[in-house]
Amino acid sequence: MIIVLKNGVERAQTENLVEWVKSQGLSAHLSEGQFQTVIGLIGDVSSIDMELIRGLSIVDSVTRVSEPYKNANRKFHPDDTVIEVGLKDSLKVNIGGESNFAVIAGPCSVESKEQICEIAQAVKAAGANLLRGGAFKPRTSPYDFQGLKGDGIELLLEAKQLTGLPIVTEIMDLSHLPLFDEVDVIQVGARNMQNMELLKALGRTDKPILLKRGLANTLQELLMSAEYIMAGGNRKVILCERGIRTFETATRNTLDIAAVPVLRELTHLPVIVDPSHASGMARLVKPLSLTAAAAGADGVMIEVHNNPQAALCDGAQSLTPEQFAETLIAVNKVREALKQ
Amino acid sequence: MIIVLKNGVERAQTENLVEWVKSQGLSAHLSEGQFQTVIGLIGDVSSIDMELIRGLSIVDSVTRVSEPYKNANRKFHPDDTVIEVGLKDSLKVNIGGESNFAVIAGPCSVESKEQICEIAQAVKAAGANLLRGGAFKPRTSPYDFQGLKGDGIELLLEAKQLTGLPIVTEIMDLSHLPLFDEVDVIQVGARNMQNMELLKALGRTDKPILLKRGLANTLQELLMSAEYIMAGGNRKVILCERGIRTFETATRNTLDIAAVPVLRELTHLPVIVDPSHASGMARLVKPLSLTAAAAGADGVMIEVHNNPQAALCDGAQSLTPEQFAETLIAVNKVREALKQ
Amino acid sequence: MIIVLKNGVERAQTENLVEWVKSQGLSAHLSEGQFQTVIGLIGDVSSIDMELIRGLSIVDSVTRVSEPYKNANRKFHPDDTVIEVGLKDSLKVNIGGESNFAVIAGPCSVESKEQICEIAQAVKAAGANLLRGGAFKPRTSPYDFQGLKGDGIELLLEAKQLTGLPIVTEIMDLSHLPLFDEVDVIQVGARNMQNMELLKALGRTDKPILLKRGLANTLQELLMSAEYIMAGGNRKVILCERGIRTFETATRNTLDIAAVPVLRELTHLPVIVDPSHASGMARLVKPLSLTAAAAGADGVMIEVHNNPQAALCDGAQSLTPEQFAETLIAVNKVREALKQ
Amino acid sequence: MIIVLKNGVERAQTENLVEWVKSQGLSAHLSEGQFQTVIGLIGDVSSIDMELIRGLSIVDSVTRVSEPYKNANRKFHPDDTVIEVGLKDSLKVNIGGESNFAVIAGPCSVESKEQICEIAQAVKAAGANLLRGGAFKPRTSPYDFQGLKGDGIELLLEAKQLTGLPIVTEIMDLSHLPLFDEVDVIQVGARNMQNMELLKALGRTDKPILLKRGLANTLQELLMSAEYIMAGGNRKVILCERGIRTFETATRNTLDIAAVPVLRELTHLPVIVDPSHASGMARLVKPLSLTAAAAGADGVMIEVHNNPQAALCDGAQSLTPEQFAETLIAVNKVREALKQ
Repeated sequence: MIIVLKNGVERAQTENLVEWVKSQGLSAHLSEGQFQTVIGLIGDVSSIDMELIRGLSIVDSVTRVSEPYKNANRKFHPDDTVIEVGLKDSLKVNIGGESNFAVIAGPCSVESKEQICEIAQAVKAAGANLLRGGAFKPRTSPYDFQGLKGDGIELLLEAKQLTGLPIVTEIMDLSHLPLFDEVDVIQVGARNMQNMELLKALGRTDKPILLKRGLANTLQELLMSAEYIMAGGNRKVILCERGIRTFETATRNTLDIAAVPVLRELTHLPVIVDPSHASGMARLVKPLSLTAAAAGADGVMIEVHNNPQAALCDGAQSLTPEQFAETLIAVNKVREALKQ
Repeated sequence: MIIVLKNGVERAQTENLVEWVKSQGLSAHLSEGQFQTVIGLIGDVSSIDMELIRGLSIVDSVTRVSEPYKNANRKFHPDDTVIEVGLKDSLKVNIGGESNFAVIAGPCSVESKEQICEIAQAVKAAGANLLRGGAFKPRTSPYDFQGLKGDGIELLLEAKQLTGLPIVTEIMDLSHLPLFDEVDVIQVGARNMQNMELLKALGRTDKPILLKRGLANTLQELLMSAEYIMAGGNRKVILCERGIRTFETATRNTLDIAAVPVLRELTHLPVIVDPSHASGMARLVKPLSLTAAAAGADGVMIEVHNNPQAALCDGAQSLTPEQFAETLIAVNKVREALKQ
Repeated sequence: MIIVLKNGVERAQTENLVEWVKSQGLSAHLSEGQFQTVIGLIGDVSSIDMELIRGLSIVDSVTRVSEPYKNANRKFHPDDTVIEVGLKDSLKVNIGGESNFAVIAGPCSVESKEQICEIAQAVKAAGANLLRGGAFKPRTSPYDFQGLKGDGIELLLEAKQLTGLPIVTEIMDLSHLPLFDEVDVIQVGARNMQNMELLKALGRTDKPILLKRGLANTLQELLMSAEYIMAGGNRKVILCERGIRTFETATRNTLDIAAVPVLRELTHLPVIVDPSHASGMARLVKPLSLTAAAAGADGVMIEVHNNPQAALCDGAQSLTPEQFAETLIAVNKVREALKQ
Repeated sequence: MIIVLKNGVERAQTENLVEWVKSQGLSAHLSEGQFQTVIGLIGDVSSIDMELIRGLSIVDSVTRVSEPYKNANRKFHPDDTVIEVGLKDSLKVNIGGESNFAVIAGPCSVESKEQICEIAQAVKAAGANLLRGGAFKPRTSPYDFQGLKGDGIELLLEAKQLTGLPIVTEIMDLSHLPLFDEVDVIQVGARNMQNMELLKALGRTDKPILLKRGLANTLQELLMSAEYIMAGGNRKVILCERGIRTFETATRNTLDIAAVPVLRELTHLPVIVDPSHASGMARLVKPLSLTAAAAGADGVMIEVHNNPQAALCDGAQSLTPEQFAETLIAVNKVREALKQ
């Protein structure tokens, strides 16, 4: 970490800061130029809060030389992490690594046995290898449908038994964890990306965790949240880019597609893309899925519905099974083309 | 709610949508112009998800005519809500309402009995009427200090006993709720503004809740989160503007000072400002506190530290007790000037 | 245009607004509900300023039902615009339309005859069909190199004579227009996207204009700037997505890849992508070029340098000719795959 | 400037970069740690483009130790700049400096002699010391009213003769400069903040320039644009905060009030605030004007209209003369209170 002091800082203030640095178990290398004094911090600076130093009245700028994440850092783990997904009853799927591509598909919300089983069969037939479906739903309004909760998970398990597809579903509070025993992949939604207590609890499980990027979170913060899970011992983290909040309103969020190659450089963890939530519009799901494949993502997560009536609303950002199948064919063409 | 359809939508699709609207218990008023068809929804549309309708392929735009929040809405509750704060052992403070101004002050983290008691006495002497201090700390990095937790709350209660100041401290997970029994005001941090399960749990208590705006959340979303708490029966919600995330990096966040008059128009709930977190720099706390007073806020929340050594780091965005006293004097001058 | 009034607006105020609407040559359709009054504006509302109406104290919200752009609107011009590029001395290239793909390549700045000619030959050999190079350079700092200006255009023309590649270069002020006589495509940079006087002047030429999206401009604003040019009679506008400014700092800007399919829906004008400026990093140019192809863009604009020494700096976001050739091969594979 | 290299960079690449640094007339101080190599650049780095270095494949991060602006930098000019405004026919007004406060008021657009003269007299009576009015109007749509142009300036000059108020009006292209001969302060609008050719031309005049911050521009970029003007010899630059573009849609833009104290720290130039454009709503102009005074701004620029009919639209973000007078009284109370 490099601290650049302001012009004209008094000697005593500089020494005070150097003393403090040493009290944190670090060495400080002081370099005084004609105009500027620079302090280099040597040692394990991962527990030093940059923001706090930046706020000191004598400090001009602070630069972190090494990333604050370790377990998630590709520097220390150069090989791609491959996460084996699938509990006893289900097919096994590898997420991450050169030759694998995860296709996670299913409805926004689990509504009934018929619905989830029908969609599960349809998406499996089209080539999906994991089934998603919302049991606990994070809604902006308390008056919106909040999901079937535990019953929704039961229905997902029935669909899993029927199709063999491992299931992915979102957790909203750590008190619900016991209900997720037979869930194959636990999803942490964008709104909970920095729910640190939840992340810590998930770090103590051995479940694969699908961690979605928060609406206003940087890639480094996403990696720090992965680090929260990994610091607890659970190294099975799948990152998901799902769009960030910007001034543009033509799409619900702005898909940050460059996040895919950037994350793949910074981390060994698998990176997938959710084009459904990024755009909020069914007709953009296909082109954005293609960009995910082109950018080198390890998979996509796509909303699919089966009910043309309900689809009026639930289907706003969802594809029909036919559109989903067509999207997958095109995604595979892009993947094949880039392999050659 | 007004739905504008795209050009050239087929009759059957329009009817399908109208049918669906009716199935939701609403009436639909169809108005077909030369170029555009517009559907007006009549009835209680608060449970209709705008985003989902906006995503429909036949829809051009959707406008909500009435706000989706009710309990928090000034239209239905024109008078300012005044929240009486202070449990048995403490002084009583009113937050909200013309003549009241809450001054919440204290350290970023509770560190020791000496520290919190010394600061509590200093901020009380300077004019603070509530004591804040972090017991559970939401940190970006799992390697940063996570707070004294339950012990921190105990220390806050000792400082309360000493000074009579009601205490404000942050909750990070609903499982910790029993530890907050004697806490006067429970704070929900920016990262948890949309932790819906936590909000629901707090809605079942009768504690005043200080709800901070999330980094990338709109004012309407802040009000919807307040609505989550209020829908559970707890109407004691205090809103807090603490800066939003933008492209500007000169300050940690961008204080959205217009949020104060806008919120005061939209809601009857008290609105306070946190200049310490908004700027991340001690030297901006005074001018930003003055803007809060000038904008008509119901109070400010300010970080104050007492230890010049530790202040090197913990004090980055904190004032000394002297600076805090000086800030309050200026804030009061502005408030007085605007009363005349 | 639909205007929703606030609750409790007085009759006289409503009538006042309706009168004003009529004075603008429009009809107003008033619909008074139990809670809300809605005014529908009928007629040509393209000259009505939404922002101004939104600011009226009696107005709750305003929704534009029809887009404010006409010439650029696909509704009125369903077929893709194909722009023939190339003046007397050069090859002819079509930009826009199903089977065409523009590859615009060249250095950030034109530096010397040798440099631009060498790069022009290299990018032509690799498959580029237009040559770009900066003669006038918009730099944030007045102390940075401002380009060779008129001399730079002369050098581009020499490279064009040598290779036959039509040239694309940026204009920074309308007073320079006479220097662009033999330039094939005039570029308007992001910083000038709303330099309305420049746009109007370009609208009076018959040159193809490559219009870059501003850092903080919405897609609708981009289309309105295209409309400025088109309203003057020049219909040859090529739109360019080059990244927007967001809170994320891992890349220089955030490439809004969804802009490609969204723009292709809204307009008939060609849409290209500039991955070099969007990311600011050479190593991201290839993956982002692939996403452009996957998203259905009509072309890419890529920075290429030839001098490994100078490349230390000028090459920060530029590819070597070899990297560029490799990128194009992959881009073509994606395009081929999606044609099948 | 401090360049941190990536892990595992080859010796030859490092030396290559060091050689390049030296070729730019700078010294390089190489410091090789166990994990990281850091290069410190010594000398005048103001012409080094940080973005370009940041994009190099061997570079991890770049930090500028000294600001890239000199003329605008308070470090080198600690005293507040006071700009004397007012040509032959007008009153003299000082902008900047402890005891001065500029109140610039007038209509959005100049419409007629009666209109501008009536408003000029009204705002003078209420305490304004400069008159603003748009002659050239930057409009998003080519179909919107573009201003009276040269005739508008003539009308402003008549109002100046009548009242003695110096006039402020916006320039949109450098070719219009001759029309601004008798204009007291030339305004550069937000959309033209990085119209570098215009800034350079204004740098060659001796007119006070009111430079508005661009919608997506950082404070450093604003200062660099001021530097463009100052580098040409014109040191009379007035900075104006007028809101930035964020995700929040409750106000037209987000007023970055912290920009005032931050700019006053970084620069000696006067800083004023435009609450009318920041919010887009007349009813927010008063509270935001108060925050400007509380934050220590050197003035405010406020839209005032006089025509209740036209006010339906033009007045969306404008105050009536009565509201303006009331606002000024409150602003002065805050200024008085803070002087004591």
